[in-house]
Amino acid sequence: MSSLKGIFAPIPTPFVDEEIAYDKLEENLGKWGETGLSGIVVLGSNGEQPFLDEEEKIELWAFARKHFPEDKLVIAGTGCESTRATIRLTKKAADVGVDAALVITPHYFKANMKDPALEQYYRDVADNSPIPVLLYNMPGNTGLNMTPPLVKRLSSHPKIKGIKDSSGNIVQISEIIRDVPPDFSVFAGSASFLLPALVMGAKGGTLAAANVAPDLCVKIYDLVNEGKIEEARVIQKDILALNALVTSKYGVAGLKAALDMVGYFGGLPRRPILPIGEQEKAEIRSALEKLGVKTVA
Amino acid sequence: MSSLKGIFAPIPTPFVDEEIAYDKLEENLGKWGETGLSGIVVLGSNGEQPFLDEEEKIELWAFARKHFPEDKLVIAGTGCESTRATIRLTKKAADVGVDAALVITPHYFKANMKDPALEQYYRDVADNSPIPVLLYNMPGNTGLNMTPPLVKRLSSHPKIKGIKDSSGNIVQISEIIRDVPPDFSVFAGSASFLLPALVMGAKGGTLAAANVAPDLCVKIYDLVNEGKIEEARVIQKDILALNALVTSKYGVAGLKAALDMVGYFGGLPRRPILPIGEQEKAEIRSALEKLGVKTVA
Amino acid sequence: MSSLKGIFAPIPTPFVDEEIAYDKLEENLGKWGETGLSGIVVLGSNGEQPFLDEEEKIELWAFARKHFPEDKLVIAGTGCESTRATIRLTKKAADVGVDAALVITPHYFKANMKDPALEQYYRDVADNSPIPVLLYNMPGNTGLNMTPPLVKRLSSHPKIKGIKDSSGNIVQISEIIRDVPPDFSVFAGSASFLLPALVMGAKGGTLAAANVAPDLCVKIYDLVNEGKIEEARVIQKDILALNALVTSKYGVAGLKAALDMVGYFGGLPRRPILPIGEQEKAEIRSALEKLGVKTVA
Amino acid sequence: MSSLKGIFAPIPTPFVDEEIAYDKLEENLGKWGETGLSGIVVLGSNGEQPFLDEEEKIELWAFARKHFPEDKLVIAGTGCESTRATIRLTKKAADVGVDAALVITPHYFKANMKDPALEQYYRDVADNSPIPVLLYNMPGNTGLNMTPPLVKRLSSHPKIKGIKDSSGNIVQISEIIRDVPPDFSVFAGSASFLLPALVMGAKGGTLAAANVAPDLCVKIYDLVNEGKIEEARVIQKDILALNALVTSKYGVAGLKAALDMVGYFGGLPRRPILPIGEQEKAEIRSALEKLGVKTVA
Repeated sequence: MSSLKGIFAPIPTPFVDEEIAYDKLEENLGKWGETGLSGIVVLGSNGEQPFLDEEEKIELWAFARKHFPEDKLVIAGTGCESTRATIRLTKKAADVGVDAALVITPHYFKANMKDPALEQYYRDVADNSPIPVLLYNMPGNTGLNMTPPLVKRLSSHPKIKGIKDSSGNIVQISEIIRDVPPDFSVFAGSASFLLPALVMGAKGGTLAAANVAPDLCVKIYDLVNEGKIEEARVIQKDILALNALVTSKYGVAGLKAALDMVGYFGGLPRRPILPIGEQEKAEIRSALEKLGVKTVA
Repeated sequence: MSSLKGIFAPIPTPFVDEEIAYDKLEENLGKWGETGLSGIVVLGSNGEQPFLDEEEKIELWAFARKHFPEDKLVIAGTGCESTRATIRLTKKAADVGVDAALVITPHYFKANMKDPALEQYYRDVADNSPIPVLLYNMPGNTGLNMTPPLVKRLSSHPKIKGIKDSSGNIVQISEIIRDVPPDFSVFAGSASFLLPALVMGAKGGTLAAANVAPDLCVKIYDLVNEGKIEEARVIQKDILALNALVTSKYGVAGLKAALDMVGYFGGLPRRPILPIGEQEKAEIRSALEKLGVKTVA
Repeated sequence: MSSLKGIFAPIPTPFVDEEIAYDKLEENLGKWGETGLSGIVVLGSNGEQPFLDEEEKIELWAFARKHFPEDKLVIAGTGCESTRATIRLTKKAADVGVDAALVITPHYFKANMKDPALEQYYRDVADNSPIPVLLYNMPGNTGLNMTPPLVKRLSSHPKIKGIKDSSGNIVQISEIIRDVPPDFSVFAGSASFLLPALVMGAKGGTLAAANVAPDLCVKIYDLVNEGKIEEARVIQKDILALNALVTSKYGVAGLKAALDMVGYFGGLPRRPILPIGEQEKAEIRSALEKLGVKTVA
Repeated sequence: MSSLKGIFAPIPTPFVDEEIAYDKLEENLGKWGETGLSGIVVLGSNGEQPFLDEEEKIELWAFARKHFPEDKLVIAGTGCESTRATIRLTKKAADVGVDAALVITPHYFKANMKDPALEQYYRDVADNSPIPVLLYNMPGNTGLNMTPPLVKRLSSHPKIKGIKDSSGNIVQISEIIRDVPPDFSVFAGSASFLLPALVMGAKGGTLAAANVAPDLCVKIYDLVNEGKIEEARVIQKDILALNALVTSKYGVAGLKAALDMVGYFGGLPRRPILPIGEQEKAEIRSALEKLGVKTVA
């Protein structure tokens, strides 16, 4: 496996009339494959993972792995609420060739998801996984946070290789980096704090904005590695506005609209997510233009 | 259909070695059928709904409807994250004979689940549902709250017949009751605020504690209808401690342990929920005894 | 001292050009004195307590006690952040004749205001207070909540006679009532949950809305005592809209505007609180009219 | 005035038997004066500002300015809840020679402290201030956050020269830096995110930890200016543990205990803040030793 570092795009699932549009996906994969991305996540939050049936998920992972460059990673979002379902899907994802599994915290039963339950959950999943496991901390969607002591304990498991932390809490990210082994990969979960996370020692990012502006995100990563912090800062500040529109503000509906503007297929999310309106689209178009990303539609 | 009022138990799903134990369920259903309960909810939160596959859910609804007294209601928890899955499951639940569907708010994509999206979601589900639909507001688990104006708008839909509000926010519950038609059924979602909700005009409750102490919950309901508020208050205060243990404090793991103590089959939840320990069980036993509920194990 | 029960108005402090307008206050006190109120709170939150200097506070308490009917209580909001300041003000309030002190939780140093610190604080204040002390839990403003176990421990102190709980959490209020001695007075802190709190055993309420519609609030209280719950419920539902406008929605600026409309002097709050606009005033006027409260301006 | 950049210590107020101990303060000021600190804040949160009377505050500012090196800045925390009190104190602080005023958001009346009210407040204060004004955003204590658009609007006021942002939200800090004029000074409000903030363009920090380990904090600042990011990262990670103990975990009680250990006078906070225990002190001592800060007591 290529090493777990660099910039990853958690790609959206393209739908036409609510059905997966594999032809559109193939085109998108071709384009992302030509960028500097280190890989993609298939069925992270932006993939609308909670809206897909199990069969759809497996077919999607297989298709993506088949149609994406071999030297780039394909990571599958395999987390479910129950331990048994997550193990089952992780095995099936491995069967179809994906390189690693990104496993979100179970979160519906918040009263029961204390650290000991989460620790046991991830150990059970990792013990049964044929492929490397990445933790996925996404409090904005789950209402649950993985604490640094929990991540520290899990980081010693031989199959658990990293974490995507979307909390945006730079102190927590710093504490995690301080506590884990050097080869454990901490990824920024949003472009809005990519540079600060990299400066603290993150190994990369898996970023919604990397779908729309992959090479700008890769540029921040490269500049940090070259020690060119001030140049990186300029891009980092510039990308904040676009990033907010395709994450916290309009979510995957905004992300898909932005993809349509830059020459990828975006389309509409499955319901109940509503399409965004013309005013919201104009906001996104304006942010893309200010960022110097070429719009085609 | 019997009218939507009275006390309902959102029953847990019994497992042996993580598989549904239908023999145990049949025994439990027999016992609940002999109480004053108006009905049960199958695959509400306490049914561990997010842990069951679609086929399991349908089989479970069919079984419960078949083995529960005909003059009592069986309500199915059919809510999923996507509109299409919720509609599909609601239709299948109707096919196997359940009386109504309890539909939780989709909640993973919080940035997109504003009131207009939730309103469209519930209208789409209700338009396609063969059976009455109940809204289910459960912010403690979902991190999302249904506002009174949203509930008001939805309450005029001919298929939407009520709401289970588990927020515990008595002001919100009062505002909802003020705003909906008189035959729209507002249910308290927890025994901890049953009496206050009934006094404000709620039609009943669907209560975790009603699994363990059904007739005490029914007694509060009956006393309010008889105008005996002070007697109701005594029971209401007494039930608070037990209720906390089987809901906010230990969740479904606590509820199942309590069932084992009072002569029902409780067993263990599916993983990742961990069993509670001996000290937690002693707390529950003590609360049961203080409440005068007979323990057998 | 009259017993601690019934409906209290936490009166606003009238200002003209930001200075205390004692003539206006005297007029207001005369009107409230003729209502069914059991008393007033001078320098609760609605009194803009954090905006007044120590000398202003003492003068205000003295004036209010002097100009309010002797058979009704005057309670002084004496809580400050430091123990020494609270004790000093409580003694001075007692010196000028007020009947009891309402003491809000210190809250700025949230990391340090755990239960042991709060318990010691209230014990120190009560040990040094010449007059009865009421706890004041106001999480909406302070960001801090008093837990039922803390209130239980404090309720055994001979000088601590009650609590105003403005949390709106009816389960917490029920737990407190369950845990305290029978003569400990629990007051609803807002009219929006007055009836539910009374039904659970609260001794009354200290309510912003009681400034504007004192006799409607008293009516709810009287109806509950007469066992006329359904009649009380009608008023309770009707008062929700007005209550929201003069508390959570527009705060003391809304409350003062409402007072101006019903024949009291309201005026403007001190800065930085801004006056409300015409649209907000129209909302309040409409709510007053729907409630049947006579408007004169 | 020296320019607003570098590392500042928000110094604690020393008390003996709850009275200000000026002799201890003078000793402390002498020691801080010999470090690389650019200045101090007198009566920020760590100065226990809400516990001091107005006369104490003014005397303290005068004393600090007199006993601290002239080439270093003394900033006074002058914010109160009312506009008039803040203006009065800011003028008095200017009269006794302090260099700038740090003005926390008024926050008690949260329903009324929307952006327009906060904007008007800061304009009123700045219009009336003889000295430069710094905004102070401290949501952990106030429960209120200053948004980037608000800060942007205020940053054009000629008297408003910077902001201390203690939110720890690195995205927000990045957005503020993006939006304000280049000479507007954004300060990290805690050492836990000093390096990330500096990398994004912050001009410095005002840091509780800078009381205890001033030269380590200054070292991070200097290394960033020299482009030595990796060396800065090592210190940044090392300082996290100590920082948590003297801020979020034990607050000013922890900070004062730490000062006692490193040769300054710390003493006890005023009540109701309780002293920390021996176990907490051992934690702090251990963190100091791991950080290589010499302990003397």
